[in-house]
Amino acid sequence: MEIISLHRIKEILAKSNPETLLAAIEEGFVLYADGKVVVPPVGHLAFTDPPGDVHIKYGRIEGDEYYVIKIASGFYDNPKQGLPPGNGMMMVFSAKTGEPLAILHDEGVLTDIRTAIAGAVVAKYMAPSNVKCIGIVGTGVQARLQLAYLNSITPCREVMVWGRSLEKGEAMAADPDLSEFNISVTTDMAALAERCNLIVTTTASRKALLMAGQVRPGTHITAMGADASGKQELDPALFAKADIVVADSIDQCVDHGDIYHAVKSGELALEKILALGDVIQHAQRRRTSDAQITIADLTGVAIQDIQIAKGVYIAR
Amino acid sequence: MEIISLHRIKEILAKSNPETLLAAIEEGFVLYADGKVVVPPVGHLAFTDPPGDVHIKYGRIEGDEYYVIKIASGFYDNPKQGLPPGNGMMMVFSAKTGEPLAILHDEGVLTDIRTAIAGAVVAKYMAPSNVKCIGIVGTGVQARLQLAYLNSITPCREVMVWGRSLEKGEAMAADPDLSEFNISVTTDMAALAERCNLIVTTTASRKALLMAGQVRPGTHITAMGADASGKQELDPALFAKADIVVADSIDQCVDHGDIYHAVKSGELALEKILALGDVIQHAQRRRTSDAQITIADLTGVAIQDIQIAKGVYIAR
Repeated sequence: MEIISLHRIKEILAKSNPETLLAAIEEGFVLYADGKVVVPPVGHLAFTDPPGDVHIKYGRIEGDEYYVIKIASGFYDNPKQGLPPGNGMMMVFSAKTGEPLAILHDEGVLTDIRTAIAGAVVAKYMAPSNVKCIGIVGTGVQARLQLAYLNSITPCREVMVWGRSLEKGEAMAADPDLSEFNISVTTDMAALAERCNLIVTTTASRKALLMAGQVRPGTHITAMGADASGKQELDPALFAKADIVVADSIDQCVDHGDIYHAVKSGELALEKILALGDVIQHAQRRRTSDAQITIADLTGVAIQDIQIAKGVYIAR
Repeated sequence: MEIISLHRIKEILAKSNPETLLAAIEEGFVLYADGKVVVPPVGHLAFTDPPGDVHIKYGRIEGDEYYVIKIASGFYDNPKQGLPPGNGMMMVFSAKTGEPLAILHDEGVLTDIRTAIAGAVVAKYMAPSNVKCIGIVGTGVQARLQLAYLNSITPCREVMVWGRSLEKGEAMAADPDLSEFNISVTTDMAALAERCNLIVTTTASRKALLMAGQVRPGTHITAMGADASGKQELDPALFAKADIVVADSIDQCVDHGDIYHAVKSGELALEKILALGDVIQHAQRRRTSDAQITIADLTGVAIQDIQIAKGVYIAR
């Protein structure tokens, strides 16, 4: 059993081709949509003193060499002690003998990266052919990673970032990892929606931030902030305007994604929702004109964890 | 995060006082019976080619410093490749920050030991005051460990082992780890039940091995083989003869222990079943005469994993 530290994981990621991980996660979504991934219910332990949550996500692709277990924790008072709230690891086992092969002690970083890669996969298949300006809603770790992973997907280098404060937006604009992009900053969502036709929302908002009236024809929106009950980033009416609506997991998005709010309010019929894996496989289910509005709702599925853990393990 | 190998775990166990682990597991059963242990449903992944099972057991004591996750696998074709069927690890985390503290890569050994210690705890509280002869049903790893851990519980050194073949029984009798005991071997269950008043059944049997008519007054029986649906070691009629019936987990034993068969056949009323933790705490629920027949059904509960993992971590 091999232990792979966060430092070593970062080295492995730096020297590996991002296309390989993107292809692995893309393949994962296809297998998931085709019912070839076994994903049991998520395990959960809740703590109150201090407050915390632990989630155990695990699964396997039918017939694969490996299975993966992820343990992820969030202890919200950790910053008071100078510790990050999140921690975690992904574990790779042999599906032929049960032997543990590697523990990737990623401290939660691989979850951030697999989430950003899902955004890149969506943009590859759903963005309009000519991206004029990328709009990023939010200024945190995931906002930055989503933008970084769009680098290889679109030649567009014009970016507008929306933040609750200009300071946070400006801090993101100054991030050396994003130096290839020309980033402007705004606190005005209408201005972002006016200018950008590929918008990624990455906040922990609990009410709609991007309104139906703000979005112009020809825009694609990836909403990845609403990953638990109570969270919301998109105006439900936006789903009624959309030509194509895609979910990473239809069940999860209907349960607690932005799609939940749209279905509940009657703006979105269940039959309209397509699985991301189906859109990757079938070109005819994708955008047919650059005037269409499309939305992808991402809640995060264990197949992403399986694929990134295997990817890092194989590339080590 | 510290990795503790099986070799190191064995060293820690060898130098630690067995009483300390016994006391920890005893305390665990009491806390469990008192509803102070959080044990979510067991996670499970099933494999068919080759056949295998992975179980994820986890939980915590309310207010404790630690939580524990156990991953245990059984891949039944492993011996064809010269590998043991079982593998696994126990992981100790901080319940205050979520940080992983240690991975005990015990390869399943700590599960065997915590199971044997539960047998010793039961004997401490339920065996007749004068054990004339210990009867062990089965000749495998758990048969040997159950006997080894009875060493500190009773001064009795007379042992009769039942095996399907005399060869396996004789191999167990020759085990140097059991050299303190005078072990005789039989294939006749009636002979064992005639002579022994503390009987431990440890087989993977799928039908009753020990019959009601064979057991004499004053006998205590610990049945720990039936840990999954379909397994059975005791004649259901034995439960009707018993004065006291105890379960490590009432829910689990009713679901898939030997108690399941006795409840189903009408030989045992649900109200008669006591929790092991209650019997440990309340002397008045224990044997009141050396003529009584008592039974303990053990299916294995996550609190045992929690306590042994913490015990080894603290003693390291």
